[in-house]
This record gives sequence, structure tokens and C-alpha cells, in this order.
Amino acid sequence: MSSVEAEDFYRIWRIDLSQQSLKYEPVPSAWLKLGGRALSARIMLDEVPPLCEPMGSNNKLIFAPGLFVGHMLSSCDRISIGAKSPLTGGIKEANAGGSTGLQMAFLGMKALILEGQLPEGLLQVLVLSKAGVRFDDGQDLTSKGVYQATSILQERYGEKAAIALIGPAGELRLASAGIQNLDKDSVPSRIAARGGLGAVMGSKGLKAIVFDASGCAKPPIFDLEAYRKAQKEFNRALLAHPQTETYRDYGTAAMTNLSESLGGLPTRNFSSGTFEYAEQISGENMRDLLRSRGGKSNTTHACMAGCTIRCSNVFADVEGKAVVSPLEYETIGLMGSNLGIGDLDAIARLNYQANDLGIDTIELGAALGVAAEAGLMEFGDWQAALGLIDEIRRNTPLGRVLGGGAALTGKVFGVERVPVVKGQAMSAYEPRAIKGTGVTYATSPQGASHTCGLTIRAKINHLDPEGQADLSRALQINNAGYDSLGACLFSAFGFNAVPHTIRELLTARYGWELPEDILQVLGRECLSAEREFNRRAGFNSSHDRLPEWMTKEPLPPHNTVFDVPEGDLDGVFNW
Amino acid sequence: MSSVEAEDFYRIWRIDLSQQSLKYEPVPSAWLKLGGRALSARIMLDEVPPLCEPMGSNNKLIFAPGLFVGHMLSSCDRISIGAKSPLTGGIKEANAGGSTGLQMAFLGMKALILEGQLPEGLLQVLVLSKAGVRFDDGQDLTSKGVYQATSILQERYGEKAAIALIGPAGELRLASAGIQNLDKDSVPSRIAARGGLGAVMGSKGLKAIVFDASGCAKPPIFDLEAYRKAQKEFNRALLAHPQTETYRDYGTAAMTNLSESLGGLPTRNFSSGTFEYAEQISGENMRDLLRSRGGKSNTTHACMAGCTIRCSNVFADVEGKAVVSPLEYETIGLMGSNLGIGDLDAIARLNYQANDLGIDTIELGAALGVAAEAGLMEFGDWQAALGLIDEIRRNTPLGRVLGGGAALTGKVFGVERVPVVKGQAMSAYEPRAIKGTGVTYATSPQGASHTCGLTIRAKINHLDPEGQADLSRALQINNAGYDSLGACLFSAFGFNAVPHTIRELLTARYGWELPEDILQVLGRECLSAEREFNRRAGFNSSHDRLPEWMTKEPLPPHNTVFDVPEGDLDGVFNW
Repeated sequence: MSSVEAEDFYRIWRIDLSQQSLKYEPVPSAWLKLGGRALSARIMLDEVPPLCEPMGSNNKLIFAPGLFVGHMLSSCDRISIGAKSPLTGGIKEANAGGSTGLQMAFLGMKALILEGQLPEGLLQVLVLSKAGVRFDDGQDLTSKGVYQATSILQERYGEKAAIALIGPAGELRLASAGIQNLDKDSVPSRIAARGGLGAVMGSKGLKAIVFDASGCAKPPIFDLEAYRKAQKEFNRALLAHPQTETYRDYGTAAMTNLSESLGGLPTRNFSSGTFEYAEQISGENMRDLLRSRGGKSNTTHACMAGCTIRCSNVFADVEGKAVVSPLEYETIGLMGSNLGIGDLDAIARLNYQANDLGIDTIELGAALGVAAEAGLMEFGDWQAALGLIDEIRRNTPLGRVLGGGAALTGKVFGVERVPVVKGQAMSAYEPRAIKGTGVTYATSPQGASHTCGLTIRAKINHLDPEGQADLSRALQINNAGYDSLGACLFSAFGFNAVPHTIRELLTARYGWELPEDILQVLGRECLSAEREFNRRAGFNSSHDRLPEWMTKEPLPPHNTVFDVPEGDLDGVFNW
Repeated sequence: MSSVEAEDFYRIWRIDLSQQSLKYEPVPSAWLKLGGRALSARIMLDEVPPLCEPMGSNNKLIFAPGLFVGHMLSSCDRISIGAKSPLTGGIKEANAGGSTGLQMAFLGMKALILEGQLPEGLLQVLVLSKAGVRFDDGQDLTSKGVYQATSILQERYGEKAAIALIGPAGELRLASAGIQNLDKDSVPSRIAARGGLGAVMGSKGLKAIVFDASGCAKPPIFDLEAYRKAQKEFNRALLAHPQTETYRDYGTAAMTNLSESLGGLPTRNFSSGTFEYAEQISGENMRDLLRSRGGKSNTTHACMAGCTIRCSNVFADVEGKAVVSPLEYETIGLMGSNLGIGDLDAIARLNYQANDLGIDTIELGAALGVAAEAGLMEFGDWQAALGLIDEIRRNTPLGRVLGGGAALTGKVFGVERVPVVKGQAMSAYEPRAIKGTGVTYATSPQGASHTCGLTIRAKINHLDPEGQADLSRALQINNAGYDSLGACLFSAFGFNAVPHTIRELLTARYGWELPEDILQVLGRECLSAEREFNRRAGFNSSHDRLPEWMTKEPLPPHNTVFDVPEGDLDGVFNW
């Protein structure tokens, strides 16, 4: 097979919703060696007016599988979804596991670009298959929760197709709405959560997109032997890493105790870094709980076919009945300690409601924390939190505010202690205690986001402002690279040991000549495109800051403020 | 008298609310020849961290009388109030007539700078007099409307003192809250309305500021004879201008028919530039109505002592009972045609409620227009509008959203057609029909504001994009100059005929050597400081744009979009 053959398998699928038309386009050469997040950023920069209204007709919604996607390489079949964000007003990419990326790759989609909008009032299901596109009426799915909508869609389109769908929150165009994808067991649990992509999908008039690759072949591999060899080496390294085992045992909830021990567990609307019930919401406690419950309970579960880490879980109630899958650390931090809630069963119920609405649990948890600060609920009162979430479902003014995210909630209720950057809520790492992650929050073109560069695992003094910018820079570059490959960030447990396999896998798959540091090359190209889009959208260094109050208000227990010098923040992208 | 004597009358009064202390400071030389808006901008630039939280302790609230203030020069005793805006996140100055400026000048205040915040939960009245400052408890005024609070304050502090106060909206820290000042007849009708200055005052813990100049002398005049001579010349020119008569007859409501005739009367949330009931809400109709009603009704009323224009009015009901004073064009446009309401009596009732809450009628009218578009009320239903305003008084979530302004309302309810720039609502001139004013809206450092450069009176084709930027530039410079002098923009009817009197009046008053074009020198210095503050606060050219939908959606009846080239917008401040 020639490199050209390997490349020619892929096309751009461009759908104009206003015209209800599909055009196949060859992949432009500037886009060819990009995938996932980097490709999405490049398309945004090339095609979307940076000052457009995010929920208007000029925004585009982009689905781009990472470069690795298509062969069940462990943890490497993620889908990137991009648009201009209704939450931040800047560029947005959110990625997810599940089956969407894989089915897209089988369909030969380098990227799916959704343009324009369906006429106001329509709600449709986009069905993409070997035969092209079909626009099915989806009016009967209006206001349906994600779980019920998934059942209906699976009945209609079969159990094998991948589905990306929105819940009521996306239909209501709430800026905290994400896009759910099915995991390998068809549970709609893999959410491209952050930045309001679900609202963009809602504004386009789409309830769901079905990716049906039946009859399609796997994507070609240029040099199968070389591919298998590199794959084996990577797999071995991944399995050998102790963290792989930790994550299989405890899931991401392993982070609770780590954050707590560093005084960085967001507690009661980011007013403390330590939580008296941390132990109760730890991964260790969750594991014991789930093991004791039996039934559907499972501490180890893979979101993508072929993943050997299996960090996901199924959280079941005392009778062993599944409540939600997965229960992740970010949700535990934002909807648990951040709300003063120390009960995993309560958090799981909140999580289920958020998932069913199709809402980012980080943004919602942060918004509820701000709401609690404004007196709309008591910290610790999970039933009150459920009541507030119900306001979203009922589309009340209060619900719309909460669903609009933490920044909007703070603005409406006049709260100064709002944990956001560029309008996006911080994840479950307190930046005054874990300052490198604070640098990432401040400077990432995505707004406050841990996946853009979480520094907590570095063996350093996280309270020291010195050197944090360098650490964040390195991680931001690498993570943007992984997001462009479709590689879960946890795949780094393997790739860090055998970094050369990244280039080998790409060369074996596509026949490309690539530099040794292709991961960083991809990462830098991605970040540069994102920064440039944001610059054109009106962002500058003043937006690369944590909120002022975090530089003034000391955080218990270490009583530190965020004090990484502004010069360091402004130097993050000097490479 | 020497120039130094004339200057030395003035001091900076600096009040630290956290310490409850007052410091008198000599006027720094860089501030000496500035007043009003230009002085406020300079102080902001010199002292306020541009990225501070507008309602946090680092913001300052500045009162600065214009350079002319103190001698009842017709229409020239206005007070400028400045701060970082909770509405726009940029610099803010709003000015008002009434008696505040005059009393401040008598007290020898070059500027009053309020720093810090009172401890959370306190509400106080600041009493400023010859004796210095007193902090009086104002807890009993909590939630009191502006009218009732004024009565109580006048009983307490006498009828002669000037009072600047906030209503419930300011206490609730709503970003549409203004600061009310008493007119010469002690009616709290002169609002420094725009940009949320009332919320800043509320965040500082102040319900009211009493300026009691009893026992103070008038400010000195360096050369009284020269002053009287220039004053006479200006007065003559002002009286001779036909517009002075028009405004005395019809008030600002004279604009209704002009805007309607140009297809630029904002109607039903800026979806049309023409309103079928325009005649009913015209100045001409209002005049007939008020004349027929007798009693308190009056079409001519001065807001400041000595003003010969007397554009204000007292709007009374059928029984001649005063409803509100004044009823201005901007309110008629935003709470009338923009809401589809064609009944002056209804508009007057809405106006009264807004005044009593201490809210900018422009921002509130625009927010209600967006709310109507979102289905929260029917256009034309003034009782529904009253109901929505009542939500603000009751501090419901919906009320907080509406009170947060049009941009916030649009964000919460997912409305794209939101008439704002930099987060501030447009006034009653449709920028797609009056494009020079659109340039002002787009580029003014204040956000969308007509007082920064209203082009409607120019004898040009307002639909032609050509040349509008030059027109806007000239007006923005002049108006920033007038705002720095404390001169009502209508004083230009006089000054335009005898521009040399501006320099003569200043030289006669202060003994300063000044350039001939001192008005423009002041205006440019003011705008440069404001632009620089905004730059540091994160603004750039991308913020100097009208909302995208106004460049896409044609406006009836001319079916034009806003099409002034971006290059023209970016050139407005090249002088």
C-alpha cells in the first residue's frame, strides 16, 4: 500500500444544515497530518469568523477523530468535538471516549463539519452511513433525557451504530451543555462536556447524530507489521506502569486523597482546600463500597473497546442496581466536596441527573457552589442541589442561570468568589494549592481545564510559584498532542516510557515521514492555532489570569494565594 | 486674585470606606486642568487596577464636577461619576444634572474618591460638609425606593443639601443600577444612569451621599469681568439657537419623530426602525397632552439652577397629578416603541418604577425587549412589563437577570438579537439606520452610548456607511470635552456658535493659559485615558464592533444592515 492510498481513505464530510446537503471533500494538504483537537482548531481558524455568535448560523460544529483512531489501540480512539464556545466566547475542543471516533474512522471521515442551522423549530437526527446522510425527524425526542433518548435511538438505528446526542440542556441552548457519546456498552456516558458544545449542537437543530459504519472496512494501515510491533511495545509499557493499575482499581477517584493531601480539594465553593469528609468520597472508599454491593457494581470498566486501563466504573446502589456510570473524580470534587456533600450515593444521584440533562458536571457543580454561596442552597444539602438541578429541567429562569454556568450564576447573583477563567469553571484542583495547574487554568486557550495540563503528579512543591509555568507549558504541549492523536491522557502512562512508538505508529499507519518529536509538534501547532483564533476573537493576556479574588484570598489549610508572576503566565507560550 | 488662589480652593477628598477615614489631598498637577469625565478617567487610569472586580474592594467610585461647575453657567453644572463598570468590565463615566455638582464645587471638591468597602452588611449615609465627613447609619433605608428614601433623607439632612443615592437595584448590586441626584426642585430624577455605577455604590455599602455646602462660599473666579463677558456671549448664542426653543417646547421627546422619520426608532427589540404608534409617543403629542392636563403637568422644567434650555418636564396623569419627571426620549424609545408600547401614560408608569428602583431606563428597556423576544412578555403589554419590573423589586432570579441588563438577559434566555456593545445596551437610535451613531456605539470606550457621539442631527445620508467614522470621531471628541467641562451636551447649541467662549470662560475662572481648541484637547485626553484603561482591562479592536446580527439582519423600513467598514471603525481614534 502506498501512503497516498492510506491517506485517500479519508474525506471531509461537510454538511450544510440550512440546505440539508452533504458534500464530500478531499482533505486539504494543510489538514492532512492533523487530527482530533489540532485538526478542529485548524478548521476553526480557517473557516469560522472569530467574532461570530456561538449559537448563530456562522458557527460550525466539528467532529474530528484523532490520528490514532480506528484500530482499538488501547485508549486511543477518542473523538474531538470543536466549535466556538458559547461559554467562553473562544475556541473550544472537548473530547470523549466511547465509540463515536471509531465509527467515524470506519466511515473514512477525516472530519465532519456541520455548518448553518436547521430552520428554527425543527429537531432532527442526522444519520451518517456508507450511503451518505439522511435527515430524520426527531421532534418526538424533544426534551427527552439522554438515557431515554438513547434507548429510543438504539431501537431505531440498531445497537451497533455510534450516537452523539444532546439532552434537554443542549436543546435549551445552555452554555454548560455537552454532547454525550455511547461507551462500548452503549451507555451514553462519554460526554464531550466542556464549553457548551451541546448548546451549539442544539442551536443547529440536531438532537443526535448517528454514525453507522456497517459495511465499512477498517481504515487501511500502510505497514501492518511495523504497526503491530509498535503497538505491542506501547501496550507492554502501558501495562507495566503502576498508575495503570491504580486507575483500574480506583478509577479517577484515586485523585480525591491526593488532592486532599495537597490541600487542593475544592471545598464549599473553593473556600477551602480540605474537606472533612474527603475519606468518604475517596476512590478507596468507593472501591470498597462497590465491591460490597455486587450486582451491577463494578470498579473496572472500559469506555472504549480495547482499552487496557479500564478506569471507568459502574456505580450501583445498596441493592446493586446501577445508578450511574462512571462516577469520576471531577464530579466527586465539584458536586461533592465543592458542595459540602460527603456522600457518594448522593453524588451519584446528582451525577445521573446531570448526565441525563446532558450537562457538564464540572460546570454545573461549580455553578451550584456559587449558588450555595449566594444562599440558594445550604452546603451539604444534596436534596436542595437536586432541586436546583430540577429547575434546569423545568427551564425556569433560575434553571437557565444555573445551566448557563458558574460565571453566569455569579454574575446574576452578585457573587465575587466564582472559580472560572475565560468564563469556564475550574476542575477539581485548587489552583492556589496546585499552582502549576493554576497556570494551565489561567493560560489555556480552552479556559480553566485540567485536561489541558494537570501538574499534580509532578514531584515538586506545588505551593511554590517558581517553575510552575515551565511545567504547565510542557504538559499543555503534550496534552494538546495527545488530544490530536485521539489518545486518552492516561495513555501517557505508556507513551512516556516509549515515546518513539508515537512516531512509529503514525508512520506505520499513514506512511508519513515525521519528526521525532511529533507529539510536541502537533501540540504546539494545535495551541498556536487555538491562541490565534482566540486573539482574533478578542482575547489577550489580560484573559490569561486567574480571577482577582484568588490572588487576594488565602486558601486554607496552607493559607496561600495564587502568586505565580504575571510575567511567567505571559511566557507560557514562548517556545 | 492669582491663578494659584483660584486653584487652591480645590482639594481631592479621599475616603477610605474600610477605614472610615477622610483625607484631604492637594490636587496633583497632572489632574489640575482636568474635570468631570476626563478627570475621572485620569484617576481611574492612575489608581484603579484595570482587572479588578468591579464590585470588589479594589474598584473606586469617583465623583468629579466638570471644570465649569460652580457658577450656574447655563446647563454647565453637571457631575461626572466614574468607576470600573460592572456592566461592561471597562471604564465608566456617567454624568447628570441636578445639584450635586454645584454643592461639590462649593465644598471645594475637585474630586471625591471613594475607596474600599464598608464591612459586609452595613448600609450607611455619607455626609460631607465643611466639617468633613460623617458616616451615618442608613440601615433603616434598606430596600427603600428612591422617592421615599429621598423624603427621609431630606427630612434628616435638610432641603438644601445635594444628595446622590441609590435605589434597591444598587443595593442588590444589579449592573443596570444608576445613581440618582436631586434636581433643583429636590426631585431625585437626575440619574447617572449607565454602566452600573449604582451597583458599585451599593457594593461599597453606601445608600446615599449628602453634599451639604452650607456655610461655603462660591468658588473663586480669577477674572470676574472677563467671565461675565464670555458668559453673556454664550448665553446669547444659546438663546438664539432654534433647538433651544424646540427642546424647551418638546423636551428630548422631540427626537421621536426625527428618529421615526429616519427609520431609526428602535421598535420591538430592535427588529424594526419604524413604529406604527410613533405619533402617539412623540414630543408633539406629549406637549399637547401635558398642556391639556394642567395641574402639575409642565412641558418646561430646568434640572439645574440657571439652565435656560429647560428641556425637562413633569409628566402628569389625566387628573394633573405628577407621575414622573422627566419623561425623556430615551425612555420613550426603549420602554415605549422598543417594547411595542405606544401609550405615554403607560411609559410614564414604567419610568416611575425604574426611577424608584434606581435603574437605567435604557438598559432596563433593552432587557425587557430581549425578554419579550424570549417570550417572557408580549410586546405591547405594559402591564406585563410592570410585572417583570416587579420581579426586580422582589429580587427573584428572573428579576436579577433583568436587572443585570440586556446582555445578561440575552445570555440567560439564549436570545441572539441583543442590542448591546461591550455589554451595554444601545440607546434609542437604531445604528443600522443612523450609521454614524452606530460607529459611536461600536467604538466608544463607554459601550453603546448616544451621549458619546450622536450623529442624528448631521445633514447627511445616515444610511451611507461612508464618512460616518469621521463624523463620529469629531463628536466623540467634542462630547468627551463637554463631559469634562460639566456642560450639558445641549449647551453646544450655544458653544458651537461662539466656541472661543469655552477658553475664555476657563481662563477667566482659573487664570490658565489654554490652547484655542481646549474643548478638543480635553476630549482627546479623556478618550485616550479611557481607551488605555480599557486596553489594560482586556479590550481590543474586536470589542469595537456592533453585534454580529446587526451586520446580517436587514432593518425595516430601509432594509439596511450595519456596513461601516471595520477599517473605519479601527480608525476612529487615529487623530
